[in-house]
Formats: sequence, structure tokens, C-alpha cells
Amino acid sequence: MNSLIELLHIKYPIIQAPMAGGITTSNLVSAVSNAGGLGMIGAGYMDAVQLQKQIKEVKERTSKSFGVNLFIPQEAPINELDLEKAYAILQPYRDELDINNGIPSISNANQFAAQLDVIIEEKVPVVSFTFGLPSSETIKMLKNQGIIVIGTATTVNEAVMNEESRMDAVVVQGCEAGGHRGSFTSEGMNSLIGLMSLIPQTVDQLSIPVIATGGIMDGRGVTAALSLGAVAAQLGTAFLMCHESGAHNLHKDAILAAHEDQVVLTKAFSGKLARGIHNLFIENMKAHEAKLLPYPIQNTLTSDIRKAAAKQNKDQYMSLWSGQSPRLSTKQSVAELFNTIISQMNELHRNHNIAH
Amino acid sequence: MNSLIELLHIKYPIIQAPMAGGITTSNLVSAVSNAGGLGMIGAGYMDAVQLQKQIKEVKERTSKSFGVNLFIPQEAPINELDLEKAYAILQPYRDELDINNGIPSISNANQFAAQLDVIIEEKVPVVSFTFGLPSSETIKMLKNQGIIVIGTATTVNEAVMNEESRMDAVVVQGCEAGGHRGSFTSEGMNSLIGLMSLIPQTVDQLSIPVIATGGIMDGRGVTAALSLGAVAAQLGTAFLMCHESGAHNLHKDAILAAHEDQVVLTKAFSGKLARGIHNLFIENMKAHEAKLLPYPIQNTLTSDIRKAAAKQNKDQYMSLWSGQSPRLSTKQSVAELFNTIISQMNELHRNHNIAH
Repeated sequence: MNSLIELLHIKYPIIQAPMAGGITTSNLVSAVSNAGGLGMIGAGYMDAVQLQKQIKEVKERTSKSFGVNLFIPQEAPINELDLEKAYAILQPYRDELDINNGIPSISNANQFAAQLDVIIEEKVPVVSFTFGLPSSETIKMLKNQGIIVIGTATTVNEAVMNEESRMDAVVVQGCEAGGHRGSFTSEGMNSLIGLMSLIPQTVDQLSIPVIATGGIMDGRGVTAALSLGAVAAQLGTAFLMCHESGAHNLHKDAILAAHEDQVVLTKAFSGKLARGIHNLFIENMKAHEAKLLPYPIQNTLTSDIRKAAAKQNKDQYMSLWSGQSPRLSTKQSVAELFNTIISQMNELHRNHNIAH
Repeated sequence: MNSLIELLHIKYPIIQAPMAGGITTSNLVSAVSNAGGLGMIGAGYMDAVQLQKQIKEVKERTSKSFGVNLFIPQEAPINELDLEKAYAILQPYRDELDINNGIPSISNANQFAAQLDVIIEEKVPVVSFTFGLPSSETIKMLKNQGIIVIGTATTVNEAVMNEESRMDAVVVQGCEAGGHRGSFTSEGMNSLIGLMSLIPQTVDQLSIPVIATGGIMDGRGVTAALSLGAVAAQLGTAFLMCHESGAHNLHKDAILAAHEDQVVLTKAFSGKLARGIHNLFIENMKAHEAKLLPYPIQNTLTSDIRKAAAKQNKDQYMSLWSGQSPRLSTKQSVAELFNTIISQMNELHRNHNIAH
């Protein structure tokens, strides 16, 4: 009935979003897979050694299927003068946090090829991609190894491009989603399509399965996504809140306290549009939007600040990524989250709320 | 089971959005009510005489329940110099369309009290409000007459304010919605919450029934909205496309040809944020965003332009309001739209797409 579920060897149509930056611990990924969903390692910022280490850890903790997400490498030209200006803008935050480093070395070298080698060596069952499309050679190579490949899209056209590059499935990211926008076309960068619109319009144009992500936190959201034509839902914030996740406790507390109208879009942390809880850093950086450098340079420039802020428990300078449904968040175990979702879905299935 | 449906005396949980500006003809409103939904007269721009005439027409065409939507009056201070500047910005469009009128008279007089008198005189079954909350006296007076009152909200907090003012139900408008944003708090004006997030978070905070609107075009969307906890769905663009609607044929054609990433937010036509299909007027007015006057003044200033453009079949100067799901649009009759929605809902109910 649901071909993606068979393809992914999972019990429930629930995928844990591959949040990068230390959130998707081996505990989280394996707990999700053991509960009947698909756990995903957010490997965007990892080098090959870190990635291989985590894959081995996950394998020790689950015999079930799991996945890895990679960022498509993006090069940004480096202009020394712009770099100095962008660095200077961040000086007040380095002062506040007692950071004395100079301008970090900006390297366009990327780990993509080495990451792929590890994935093939470790026979990772599922790989997903964000921020673009890998080459057709890469996709062919992965598929030849029996690896399921999944892309990311924020518009119907980006989803069609994923299907045309022979992805096995595509994640459509609604405007509700927390963290970075996965857009890779100019139309995508300028669009914020809600899932209520994005899912059915994409499903109607595609043959491959569509996975929905953005603002889905419980069984109501999963059921709604499936009603709209998705074959599975990918949840980020809901899993970030789980005990097993590596998210900073202040990050979880901020989500727990936030309202939906306090979750905003910003380029301040990384140079790429992302959704998180409004704080002092986002507010103060608004005046400098025009001078922010593109991803990944801005991301490298703020890396020290984000790390020091986390260490010093200063949530006003951390990137508190969250989707638009923070009021639905609960601190709980992965097993408890699955139990809630499945019982809500069964309840909705039984008492279907249609009046006729 | 579904108290709102009983309250509204309708068969299906489907409400036709009260689109102002000539779209909600008596034919459209009565066809929706006759099909088992709730037809709504978009009376925001009508005077009492026009409203009474249409209410009588609708009553001649249906014995079923129907509603009227009113705009909460908004006053904007008028500064002659700003007015002249804003008028001058629009001169190229008046030239293009051969309009020779001077600055239109800007009046803050409003028809609200007279509209309410008509509604009570005609015993209209349902009244909804956009752009704010009526006084508690107005709400009490309407409820004393047995009239069902419904408010509009774009955030959870706005929905709570509606419940606190004793509305019988509230329409939550997702970021997907076409036409004007119904926001009336500064948080609402700065937020664009997708329905996947807005519905469940609102439902959890409210006791009154929640109606969902934004991007819903078919049975998949209605089912998704109900799964998320709404008791009914309000459809705008889907009814605008119907044969019975008064929308300009070029407007319908533009929606039929549009993609989801071509539907943008603009203040250019009215001074208030609204979603419509990108065209030359929206594009060229971007440079003047800072000098646009607030609603309703900007709306009055562009009125001649929109009317002349429609008359001369120039869609690049018309306000082509649309939600984010234009790819789901079909030119059809109201009866056909209802048949499709209901059969899709039944189909989803039968083959519920949950894997366990």
C-alpha cells in the first residue's frame, strides 16, 4: 500500500529530520529506528572520520534501517574586504562572549566526496541531500550500491527536478519548517509555501513518493500530511525535544516557552535563510542584513559565537532553530513520542471527523 | 459530533470564503448554500443599500443558511503631502489606462453601523468579521438576535482574543491564504503561520470551534484540516474559480496558469498585505513600498486603476488575488466542486493511508 515504507523497511511513516550540528546523536537516530521510524544522521557539518564513527555507533544500537543526510557543497567567492567587514560586525558578540580568535580560515574545501566514500563503505541504507542535487553520476553510483536516495524541495519545480535526477523520493519542506530552508532555485529561495499547498500540488506532478516536513509534531500532523498525499512525514522539532537528542537544554527550554509568532526567518547565523526562535542576535543583526556574507562563509564566521554561547549558557546568541509549532512541543522519550503519534493516528482513523 | 455544523445548519463542513469586490455574487453564495455548504457575501466594500439588495437576492435563491462578512472599520490619518506623493506614484498607471481623475476624495466615514442594521433587519443567519474585533456591545446585540458571529485570526493569540470577545467560532487564516491578511495585532501582521502549525496550536488553546482557511482547494485539504482539529474548512480560490463567481475571466485564467511560487504578498494595491499572482503592478510598485499609504487610503487611491484595468482586460494592473495552491484550480460549477470534494473525502476515509 505504501511503497516508500516498504522501500525504507520501516513500520511507521515517520522519519526523523536530519538536523545537523550535534542534535542527531547516535542515541536519537537509533531510538527512532528502533521505534519503527527512520532515524537520520545530520552529517552536513561532519568530516568523514566523524561520520564513520557515528554510523558505526548507530549500527551498534540498532539493526533497523537508518539514513544519513549530506549537504550539497556550495562555494562562495571570498573577498577579503567583505570578510573583514562581516567579521567586524560580529565583534560585539565576540566581546560579550570573551572570544579572542581572529578571522577564521575560510576554506571552500568540502568533505562531500569523502562522506560519500564512507556511506558506501558502511552500506548506509538511506541517503538524503539538502541544498541542491548531486551529480547524476553520484546518484547512479549510490543506487548501484542499493542505497535509497532522497532529495529535498521547497517548490513543485524543485521536486520535479529531484524526480528528473532519479531520486527515489523527495522531502517537500513547507514554510513551517525549522532550521535551514532547503531551497536551491531562485524561485525556491523567494517562496515560502505552506504544506497545505505544497503537498497536494507536488503529489499531483510527481510519480515518486513525497515525504512532508514542516510544523508536524504529532499524530494530527502526520495524518494531515498523509491525507494531502504524502507517504510519510519527517519531524524535526518534535525529535529535537526528545531526551535522546543532543540539543542544548536551553534550546529545548526556549522551544517549550515559545509561541508560533516568535519563530522567525533569519540569515544572521549562516548567510542562508533559516527558521528559529527570535533572540537578541537575530534582532541586532537585522541592521546588517545587507553586509552578511553568503553561506557557508557567514556560518563559519559565527561558529565561534554559537559554540561559546552554548558553553556559557547564553541563549540570546545561540541559533535556536524551531519549526512554527513550538506550542506542540514536549520533552519526552522517542518511545513516548511514537506512542502518542500512533495512538492519535488510530484515534483519528476511528472517529473520522467527517460529517456525513 | 460536529457542533459548528449543527450551529450553522449546513450539511458539509465547507464554507465559501467571503471574498469582497464583486466575487461573491448572489449566484455563488446561493449555489454554495444549496450544495450543503455555507455561502458567504463578502460585503466589506458594500454600502447598506447594496448589501440589503444582495441579501434579498440570496434569499430568493436559497432557503438554506448563509452569511455576510464585514470589515472592522479602520481609520488612517490623512496627510495631504503624503497623499499627493502616493497619488503621483500611481500616475504612470493612470496614463497607461487613460484615467484622468484627480485625487479621489478620501473619507474615513464607514458603513459599518448601517451594514449591521441591515443584517439585523434581514435576520442574516451568520456574520463574520475581518481585520479586527467588533465591540462587545455589537457582538452581544448580534447574538441576542440569534445571529451566529465568527471572527478571523492569523495567530493563536488573535484566536484567543476572538474567543474572549465571545465569538461563536473563529476562522484561522494560514499563510497559504489568498487576498488580504486578516491580522489585527502587530504579531499577526509580522507572522505568516502555515495551517499545518496554526490549526493544532489554536485548537489546543480554544474551546470554540476553529474553521481553517488557506490553500485548501479539494477533499484532501478539507480532510487534512479536519485531521488537524478544525471543524470546517473555508475555501476561497476554489470558489472564486467557479462559474457562479463574479471574478473577472482574466483573473480565473491567471490562477489557472499560475504556479505556487508566483503567488506573492504585496501591499501595493491596498496598503494592507495581501496574496495574489505576481504581475507588472506588483513588480513596479516594489520600489515605492516605503511611500505607500496605509489601508484603506492606498486602496481608495488604486480603485480607479483596478476598475479600468478590469474593463480594459489588462491583467497586469488588476489585483489577481489567489491562495498558494493555484495548480489545484479548475473552472467548474459549485455543484461539481462539492461532488469532487465529498468523493475525495469519502475515498480518503475508506482507504485511510496509515501503515499499520
